[in-house]
Amino acid sequence: MIRHIVLFTWTDDATDEQKATVTAELRKLPDAIPELRSYTVGPDAGINQGNHAYGVVADFDSADDYLVYRDHPLHQAVIAEHIKPILAARAAVQIEV
Amino acid sequence: MIRHIVLFTWTDDATDEQKATVTAELRKLPDAIPELRSYTVGPDAGINQGNHAYGVVADFDSADDYLVYRDHPLHQAVIAEHIKPILAARAAVQIEV
Repeated sequence: MIRHIVLFTWTDDATDEQKATVTAELRKLPDAIPELRSYTVGPDAGINQGNHAYGVVADFDSADDYLVYRDHPLHQAVIAEHIKPILAARAAVQIEV
Repeated sequence: MIRHIVLFTWTDDATDEQKATVTAELRKLPDAIPELRSYTVGPDAGINQGNHAYGVVADFDSADDYLVYRDHPLHQAVIAEHIKPILAARAAVQIEV
């Protein structure tokens, strides 16, 4: 299994509505991309200082299935229209499980 | 459920042995910390450029259980003895699932 993990921070002027839209749009993807075996997205819970603002964990049967998700036009549209406009920093890995 | 996610990058002079020791030591923690419901750790798979080097995903029933892990002496020992000596950058979130 491949587990894709990505963390974001948002720009200072990102609105609560923009941040909520990221979650709403990402949560549409599992219905459109059956390669997604498990998909966890959401804002940081505020337990610790210094955290990133948002996390995504996506599980796939294989690296090829991850690439289908990575390059899927609906996923790319969420990135272009909703994430990049408020993105300040991004950290990612893919790990074999 | 609380999902704790942390990504690391390593210093340029970190050795393969030091990196492998991080995995070996982290994988001892679930036996010692029963609050850990699921624990996935490992190096980046090398699929994408610009990634962080290492990922940890840990699931807990509650924020309190996450804090038991965060502050557990055996976890703190792995951080102090094996992670911090080769740590270049760290990104983390805790998200409610």
